[in-house]
Amino acid sequence: MKWIRAHLEGGERGQEGAVHAGSTNAFYAQLDENDRVLPVRGDPFLGSEPTGDILRLDDVRLDVPVVPPTFYCVGLNYTRHIATEGLKIPDKPDVGYRANNALIAHGQDVIMPADATKVHYEGELVVVIGKRARNLTPEQARSCVFGYTMGNDVSERNWQKSDRTFWRSKNSDTFKPMGPWIETDVDVARMETVVTLNGKESTRFHTNDMLFGIDTFISTMSRYLTLYPGDILWMGTDGHSPDLVDGDVVEVSLTGLGVLRNRFVREQ
Amino acid sequence: MKWIRAHLEGGERGQEGAVHAGSTNAFYAQLDENDRVLPVRGDPFLGSEPTGDILRLDDVRLDVPVVPPTFYCVGLNYTRHIATEGLKIPDKPDVGYRANNALIAHGQDVIMPADATKVHYEGELVVVIGKRARNLTPEQARSCVFGYTMGNDVSERNWQKSDRTFWRSKNSDTFKPMGPWIETDVDVARMETVVTLNGKESTRFHTNDMLFGIDTFISTMSRYLTLYPGDILWMGTDGHSPDLVDGDVVEVSLTGLGVLRNRFVREQ
Repeated sequence: MKWIRAHLEGGERGQEGAVHAGSTNAFYAQLDENDRVLPVRGDPFLGSEPTGDILRLDDVRLDVPVVPPTFYCVGLNYTRHIATEGLKIPDKPDVGYRANNALIAHGQDVIMPADATKVHYEGELVVVIGKRARNLTPEQARSCVFGYTMGNDVSERNWQKSDRTFWRSKNSDTFKPMGPWIETDVDVARMETVVTLNGKESTRFHTNDMLFGIDTFISTMSRYLTLYPGDILWMGTDGHSPDLVDGDVVEVSLTGLGVLRNRFVREQ
Repeated sequence: MKWIRAHLEGGERGQEGAVHAGSTNAFYAQLDENDRVLPVRGDPFLGSEPTGDILRLDDVRLDVPVVPPTFYCVGLNYTRHIATEGLKIPDKPDVGYRANNALIAHGQDVIMPADATKVHYEGELVVVIGKRARNLTPEQARSCVFGYTMGNDVSERNWQKSDRTFWRSKNSDTFKPMGPWIETDVDVARMETVVTLNGKESTRFHTNDMLFGIDTFISTMSRYLTLYPGDILWMGTDGHSPDLVDGDVVEVSLTGLGVLRNRFVREQ
């Protein structure tokens, strides 16, 4: 089943739509096999009921499918990427963080700051938590997962080296495209991640070839922290991106999750 | 003016109260000079109106005064602390992040995980953003500030060395006490930070003796990111904490902001 978050407003989708769920007109909806949009009251995590309305996908503007209470992101989780970037293989699953200000939806533009010189894409699987969870074993880990979506962990590589935290290199406004929807039924074991640049395949890898898998991360994290409904966990990337330039269009697609498309635009 | 966030429930205040503002009975209220609680509909950032009710402070249980869309935290911002911890003085203001799962209110217990061996307090000034802001000069920076509260950036020093990201060392559940309220009228330039351990003064410093000040951080950050109403920025700490043990009570007090009191309890 596919869940979207969207709004009806005619105007431009403001970035705060991604951040202040409560302050916009965004609503959750199921997206059926015929691309019909079935809005609900509430949310898919804590409870929802259909409003009875039926809309077409063309009638709505997609927002990021969830605004997380906490935005977790795994770095260095695929060996080829680690080697290409000249980094060290981690000896344990230390989860990191990204910031909600940077989230944008499918179809929105990534704005490359005027002084950004080396902007790369990173196509990633995103795990969406559905249930409050603490102290899960690896075997229990999937019980708290609601579904999956995709993320593009856009990174400025020179800033990544010079900034102590990744605040600017990975969390500048618009650097975290996510979507287009949450899919509850996928087989991660058989999933492939494909990234295209201007329509041409640029990166391909088996999504599940992770150094530390989903079950390991969720179990390890939940020993020390509570996962909450709506939390998201980005699982890292493999391969290498070329340097992106003004006008580039990047599409991230993972088997069964659709396509997350965003244009990269140089800040004026 | 003082703003609190609180709830009336008789039961234990769940941690999700700190995370899912929309899913609890928490409400905002003004706290007047006579400790009367004046609840509002809405929130102090995006708009509120009094409900007309008048409660006593004893009638309510305090929640963290705000659940931030993004939780910013400055590390290494006081030279004495940097020297004591054997760290390097940063050459630019790189803001970092903390996680909402770790937030607890004034009066709640910090739970030290069973395998935590070196837990320290860090008393900090917290800046609460009130208005959406982008590209502010240092002179304009305070225009987006709503008020101030206090935080205790609890840290496990051994994990801080071994974890790549500070996920466990600084973001284990309950490691981020914040409160008790937001004060809109304070003079940061004349502020002192005092931390007591079991009633005895343990740390004291001039709050404003920062390596990079509030105006510098807000201006630098806002060049690359949008600050949103409710975002929080913890400003770092000075001095050194002793190793905390089961039953210790830590009080953080900054001039004009009250007292943030939390007991430290060893996980069973």
